[in-house]
Amino acid sequence: MAKEKKLVQSITSMEVDFAQWYTDVVTKAELVDYSGVRGCTIFRPAGYAIWENIQKELDKRFKETGVENVYMPMFIPESLLNKEKDHVEGFAPEVAWVTYGGGEQLQERLCVRPTSETLFCDFYSHIIESYRDLPKVYNQWCSVVRWEKTTRPFLRTLEFLWQEGHTAHATAEEAEERTEQMLNLYADFCEQVLAIPMVRGKKTDKEKFAGAEATYTIEALMHDGKALQSGTSHNFGDGFAKAFGIQYTDKENKLQYVHQTSWGMTTRLIGALIMVHGDNSGLVLPPRIAPTQVMIIPIMQKKEGVLEKADELCKKLSNSLRVKVDASDKTPGYKFSEQEMRGIPVRVEIGPKDIEANQAVVVRRDTREKVIVSLDEIETKIQEILETMQADMLQRATEHRDSHTYEAHTTEEFKDIVANKPGFVKAMWCGDRACEDQIKEVTGATSRCMPFKQEHISDKCVCCGKPAKTLVYWGKAY
Amino acid sequence: MAKEKKLVQSITSMEVDFAQWYTDVVTKAELVDYSGVRGCTIFRPAGYAIWENIQKELDKRFKETGVENVYMPMFIPESLLNKEKDHVEGFAPEVAWVTYGGGEQLQERLCVRPTSETLFCDFYSHIIESYRDLPKVYNQWCSVVRWEKTTRPFLRTLEFLWQEGHTAHATAEEAEERTEQMLNLYADFCEQVLAIPMVRGKKTDKEKFAGAEATYTIEALMHDGKALQSGTSHNFGDGFAKAFGIQYTDKENKLQYVHQTSWGMTTRLIGALIMVHGDNSGLVLPPRIAPTQVMIIPIMQKKEGVLEKADELCKKLSNSLRVKVDASDKTPGYKFSEQEMRGIPVRVEIGPKDIEANQAVVVRRDTREKVIVSLDEIETKIQEILETMQADMLQRATEHRDSHTYEAHTTEEFKDIVANKPGFVKAMWCGDRACEDQIKEVTGATSRCMPFKQEHISDKCVCCGKPAKTLVYWGKAY
Repeated sequence: MAKEKKLVQSITSMEVDFAQWYTDVVTKAELVDYSGVRGCTIFRPAGYAIWENIQKELDKRFKETGVENVYMPMFIPESLLNKEKDHVEGFAPEVAWVTYGGGEQLQERLCVRPTSETLFCDFYSHIIESYRDLPKVYNQWCSVVRWEKTTRPFLRTLEFLWQEGHTAHATAEEAEERTEQMLNLYADFCEQVLAIPMVRGKKTDKEKFAGAEATYTIEALMHDGKALQSGTSHNFGDGFAKAFGIQYTDKENKLQYVHQTSWGMTTRLIGALIMVHGDNSGLVLPPRIAPTQVMIIPIMQKKEGVLEKADELCKKLSNSLRVKVDASDKTPGYKFSEQEMRGIPVRVEIGPKDIEANQAVVVRRDTREKVIVSLDEIETKIQEILETMQADMLQRATEHRDSHTYEAHTTEEFKDIVANKPGFVKAMWCGDRACEDQIKEVTGATSRCMPFKQEHISDKCVCCGKPAKTLVYWGKAY
Repeated sequence: MAKEKKLVQSITSMEVDFAQWYTDVVTKAELVDYSGVRGCTIFRPAGYAIWENIQKELDKRFKETGVENVYMPMFIPESLLNKEKDHVEGFAPEVAWVTYGGGEQLQERLCVRPTSETLFCDFYSHIIESYRDLPKVYNQWCSVVRWEKTTRPFLRTLEFLWQEGHTAHATAEEAEERTEQMLNLYADFCEQVLAIPMVRGKKTDKEKFAGAEATYTIEALMHDGKALQSGTSHNFGDGFAKAFGIQYTDKENKLQYVHQTSWGMTTRLIGALIMVHGDNSGLVLPPRIAPTQVMIIPIMQKKEGVLEKADELCKKLSNSLRVKVDASDKTPGYKFSEQEMRGIPVRVEIGPKDIEANQAVVVRRDTREKVIVSLDEIETKIQEILETMQADMLQRATEHRDSHTYEAHTTEEFKDIVANKPGFVKAMWCGDRACEDQIKEVTGATSRCMPFKQEHISDKCVCCGKPAKTLVYWGKAY
């Protein structure tokens, strides 16, 4: 019993200290371990398995739209990084430099890729000649390095895992279409699989990607009312093409520049899962992404036949579910705590009395709702519970997001909301950078996006009072 | 027609210049492109898709044996790399060092991982406490960097992709069992999926991994008679555990050191596929690993109904096969060349006359055997052809290997074989390092392995004439 209490008590309550709660959950659920390398974490099996499921599902969706995977070198020579002015200014301050290799000082420094636009552009300039070679819709799964000062597991680390798509198109229209297509693919994935509702929109010029003409983003609201940028898709126009000389001959045999896009999602999505769905007992994983969906916990497992029945049930459920038996020598109570900590969606308890009655106890992780189910129909029943749970989780997250989204019509109102009601702030904006800067200075909130679904809540800019151009979502963000 | 000839003529014949043939195939089949980063290649879609299939199949086999995936940082602090003496001596000369990050010089240099034993050991020393925590059977898929002087696509590059398994066990016996299990898993995979026969054996002390007690290896013979080390599995005993202080309390509550293993396979397997199965028309991919197994090439595709029928057939075959239609505006002859160059196992030709006769022409890539098949039974027929082709490819490779494996009883005989008959040399060895060095100096061949299947072909060491201990496979190697 001492040990059981230890596990649950070891989590700080999220109402007391949300940041500490987060750290407790990522370590106690054994998602990551801190490494001896500053700012880098170790993905433990429970954490990496979530990423594997994200990869599998996203990769399938990518390939359905014609994406092909490639792999580029992890090093970028300094001269290549310097080729596009805005891009290098955005990234140079936060890169890691390799200066020695094979015992000798290098003639040219190599940076460890913070992102691979420059490599893809160099590659495309070699392989694209004619309109027949277009479009190129390539993606890579890899890790990148950005020298962050303060780091937090999943949310901001020196090295992180991601995918980066890089495409080249014959026309500006096609590039724009792909940019939006991928953003919507990201949002659909987050909503359908991760049960996290997204605000889809466009970044302001201030917040867009270094070198992009336009950046689209999906923004989620965490349980503590802070926003998390969860995926971005960039339209580069022909800016990179001109810097790198990526040209093709069109059907009329004229030389044209290609139009490019890039888009990425990262392991930070795991941070979003934790902060949107978690509770004071630990992680709560949506069934569609959970590496283990069902944990069978035998009761009085030393009694004859109990473990055998648990294994038999496990085998049966494995047809359609990701299921495990916890046959370790811990107490059932401790196993319950562990299963809750790790966010496994459904627990099945089965002991001698259940076996006698041809039944088992099925418990949902999110609501802790308990039902007794006949072993004859348990597979269908659990499938139903998982589907309901998946839908409920999205609904709860949407309700939380909506009930923490406020409208501000004046700067005073804006300040008051940010100070007292953590969440998204919807407010009109004139489009001037000065007002955007001013709002950040006065309220602490940054512009998250100009949502695709525009509303007109006032005629005036919330900051300067001049005619407003657009509705913006603002918020404090991770 | 000019273009068609260009593609085929662009490959150097393997009999004329095997090395140039190899380079031609990897570039013309669009497996890789050279990058602006010295010694690093770009994996193009056709090359990366082979790696994805290797990953998928290996990962499935790993997980069936209880392996769990993790991800470790790509950087290793210098002090951590230095902890195990033999290991650091083996790797330090060929690492890349990061010395600057975020605009500042680092207090401690970080090397880009050449392999991750040190990180896993550090991790294990934190998370292993009791016998209950064992075994740990972890693996990661990642890229590593070794600062090679001369490089060749897939075979030897500065950065390459691989998996590295790292395990910790309670007993020496269990570690030895896992070392052998993984080597056999590798060999089975290569034989069953890549159709490449392997010699399974143990490395001599000279050739074993830096820090290992024993290294097991699988060795394949390429078409030119050179050997390729294709996968290795190492038993570390408790050497690393002692250097890193990885201890657990056993059931009697006594502190014990763990016993460890590591094992890896790399993108060099793609090089093996090319050099074992390729021919003067390009790549030949075994059906089980081929990203595209069937390419449908419409004949007179502008005639009404041809493309529709090709698409319909593609859809039908997609049930059980990886299939594509080449509907580009190239000539059929050029498409045939491309399909052969890329090693796609089966080509289906379908034109107006075929459609009228409810048939198609099916051509095997390896033998070029042509059969006319009724559209009613084409799916089953192609499945049969692919299975036969897979088996035939393994058999041909085995026959080639066996007919290029020679016995040497004297140094003179050994020299003669190496000079005139490229292949494996089987010869007895006394076990002395001096003889191993001498053989390399005199013949140019290195010891590949001491095969598990020992034979006794002589009583005497082929070098010194003293009593022989073991049969060794020798050869020139990539």
